[in-house]
Amino acid sequence: MAKPRATLGIDLHLEPAGPGLRRGLTDALREAVRTGRLTPGVRLPSSRSLATDLGIARNTVAESYADLVAEGWLTARQGSGTRVADRTVPPPPDPPAPRRREPVRAAHSLVAGAPDLASFPRADWLKATRRALTAAPNDALGYGDPRGRVELRTALADYLSRARGVRADPDRIMICAGFAQGLRLLAEVFHTRGLRTLAVESYGLDVHWDLVERAGLRTLPLPFDAHGTLPQALDSRPGRAAGRTLGAGLAATRAVLLTAAHQFPLGDALRPAHRAAVVDWARRTGGLILEDDYDGEFRYDRQPVGALQGLDPDHVVHLGTASKSLAPGLRLAWMVLPASLVPEVAEYAGGPTTGVLEQLTLAEFLTSGAYDRHVRAARLRYRRRRDDLIAAVTTHAPDVRATGIAAGLHALLRLPPGTEQSVVRAAHWHGVAVHGLSRYRHPAAADPHFDALVVGYGTPPDHAWKGTLEALCKALP
Amino acid sequence: MAKPRATLGIDLHLEPAGPGLRRGLTDALREAVRTGRLTPGVRLPSSRSLATDLGIARNTVAESYADLVAEGWLTARQGSGTRVADRTVPPPPDPPAPRRREPVRAAHSLVAGAPDLASFPRADWLKATRRALTAAPNDALGYGDPRGRVELRTALADYLSRARGVRADPDRIMICAGFAQGLRLLAEVFHTRGLRTLAVESYGLDVHWDLVERAGLRTLPLPFDAHGTLPQALDSRPGRAAGRTLGAGLAATRAVLLTAAHQFPLGDALRPAHRAAVVDWARRTGGLILEDDYDGEFRYDRQPVGALQGLDPDHVVHLGTASKSLAPGLRLAWMVLPASLVPEVAEYAGGPTTGVLEQLTLAEFLTSGAYDRHVRAARLRYRRRRDDLIAAVTTHAPDVRATGIAAGLHALLRLPPGTEQSVVRAAHWHGVAVHGLSRYRHPAAADPHFDALVVGYGTPPDHAWKGTLEALCKALP
Repeated sequence: MAKPRATLGIDLHLEPAGPGLRRGLTDALREAVRTGRLTPGVRLPSSRSLATDLGIARNTVAESYADLVAEGWLTARQGSGTRVADRTVPPPPDPPAPRRREPVRAAHSLVAGAPDLASFPRADWLKATRRALTAAPNDALGYGDPRGRVELRTALADYLSRARGVRADPDRIMICAGFAQGLRLLAEVFHTRGLRTLAVESYGLDVHWDLVERAGLRTLPLPFDAHGTLPQALDSRPGRAAGRTLGAGLAATRAVLLTAAHQFPLGDALRPAHRAAVVDWARRTGGLILEDDYDGEFRYDRQPVGALQGLDPDHVVHLGTASKSLAPGLRLAWMVLPASLVPEVAEYAGGPTTGVLEQLTLAEFLTSGAYDRHVRAARLRYRRRRDDLIAAVTTHAPDVRATGIAAGLHALLRLPPGTEQSVVRAAHWHGVAVHGLSRYRHPAAADPHFDALVVGYGTPPDHAWKGTLEALCKALP
Repeated sequence: MAKPRATLGIDLHLEPAGPGLRRGLTDALREAVRTGRLTPGVRLPSSRSLATDLGIARNTVAESYADLVAEGWLTARQGSGTRVADRTVPPPPDPPAPRRREPVRAAHSLVAGAPDLASFPRADWLKATRRALTAAPNDALGYGDPRGRVELRTALADYLSRARGVRADPDRIMICAGFAQGLRLLAEVFHTRGLRTLAVESYGLDVHWDLVERAGLRTLPLPFDAHGTLPQALDSRPGRAAGRTLGAGLAATRAVLLTAAHQFPLGDALRPAHRAAVVDWARRTGGLILEDDYDGEFRYDRQPVGALQGLDPDHVVHLGTASKSLAPGLRLAWMVLPASLVPEVAEYAGGPTTGVLEQLTLAEFLTSGAYDRHVRAARLRYRRRRDDLIAAVTTHAPDVRATGIAAGLHALLRLPPGTEQSVVRAAHWHGVAVHGLSRYRHPAAADPHFDALVVGYGTPPDHAWKGTLEALCKALP
């Protein structure tokens, strides 16, 4: 092609003819303006003269100029020709990296919250995807019910009733993109209903408290004792329980978030008397219990305690997730709602909150039995790890005591007073990322803190487990 | 097995031994309480006597009772034996169905907003899923970057720069579960920054306005004329333009939502002078433009106008989606953010908002060229449909005029004054669901309404297209 350098001082790589020619010219001119080689105010050659220089049709150049005028790169004014617009700006600087969950990159991780991702059943999941995609009706691919696909809600109703004693009707199930998204929706609905506080456990996840607070609800921590959370504080008179202000706030609270089957991170199950008491409180006051059943599938020394929701589906929202049983990356969770909440929550969601193909795949995974098989295998694996952990601690660190029920993917290791921070640092020094209990403490918690380590024994892949455990033991006092 | 009816009046189907035995007993007892066959307060037989009746070990019965006490179905008190707890309630009534997007179920749909779902490339998508799932590192399945997977952000940066003239850096891209979810995040961040209004177009989607209002921002409609939106009202002094109050609100607004490349539903592109003016406004006032580029891939009579974002990436948020180019059910959309917004938006998202496997599949789809192939084929199909529509209207309804640019998946049919409602009703009578323009009008819009039909010609499957078009023509005046 011709030598456009003589005209504009820019490189042009043009196709000989057709739409690609005009496009190539437009792209090259845009790029030249963008990178500053054509500076604001510079007048471009007339379309006629550039066309002659390039040996192409004048019309092609004129159209290309018109495109760039339309996009705002160039301006065209009667009498002053086509010029580079003066509103182009240099490319922006690199943004600061967003805050990540886990800033530390250690060789091994015992940070609680994730299952062993290496054991995700990829082949079975792909098989279920193929079946789901083949069987899906066309309209499944459209905007749909904000509650999610009925196939998955039906499969979950069956599963939750069978495995967790939940009274689940597909109409009252809502699929959400992870527990946090469900909690956010509920907090927004509660705020609209006039609630201004949510009672929470004294230990939990700050990301959950943050999103509740952003929805306009203050989080008020419940007191606890050596065996877990004391929900009866919801009934307390001002001045009792955890300080005057907090007690008054708690007594006025009409919603509470609980990890009833397995407190995260303390590890206890809510005691039977407290289960009964909190359901009685909800019924008497019209309150709502949000039951975060994040790892209900995993209990090792007895059958899992059934869901709180089974006791009173009108006052308990049951929240479950595939994040621990399969993988957090799927972003698949569910809420079983009291009937009265369904329309509001669905309206707030606006539309389905997570992809239909993954919803249909999970439905297929549940109904084919692949989910049960995977959970059974995972339960065995995690149980062995828990036994390894207890054995190792008993042998290597007689001053450390594992507490909480045998369940889930994490354990609490009680440490001698005053040693938590130094043990966490020692663990990091040995290449193990692990959190102390204080990291999970609510800033307004009133009861005395005790030193402990929260060990997510589900996190490492199988091949790294022994090494990680040995490294941890070196750090224990 | 034994005849437990004699003892409890309930059916028991028990396995002969093992953990299934205890589980079966627990399930049957729970079910009996739940369904009301065992009524509150009823005293159960002692574990010894029930075990004898059933011919099973006493321990099994005792454990089963203990499970149900722990779950709150039964109570056990020293001296009064085991009784059915009195806090069980009957199953709740069916909830009212949540509000759906489309209450009408006509034989054909020309409601705008969805592509032809029958043409979703299932085989290619499955192939991409297999590749993505095989290649994904384990940590892709965990909680990850709130912006979404880097593979997809990189593929999108390349694609958006190439196809839409967006200045996209993977670090500034955020994947979201549909456009609406991205808009919601932005509205929340804007509210926290102190914004209380968002300028919008006089015609658009009420679900978007609703979610913005729920985040605490009032939506203020911009005036329009026969060729589209007039963003210069953002610069107006109080009293000018659209009424005193609205004008004052608009002049104080620091953010505006625009469908610049193809107004939805009016169908015009923002005029070049207005593109320049709104970018100038944003730069001068520190304002932000949200560019809803919902169907930028589809323009038929010339190359698409490049994205507004290319003019000033520091003042324009570019929002795109796979909902029109592939399918809404995927719940895959993206935002290209000014650098200064990235940390806040990522923090508000809390975590990744949509499943990683679908993200990785779309990345594979883009980089393999399957996306371009699919869009090219879709563009041909929709263009033919648009030509069919114009031809049919010209032939059958000379009083009706199609306006707007040749782009996207919908057309605006201008109707004789006063006929909109009757034409919509006539269409429904002929089995065609279609919306009048008034359905898309902002309640506070000031300029006079004109009668029109918004025809989503992308919606029907190929086999139904001709029939749908014929039915529509019967309804036109």
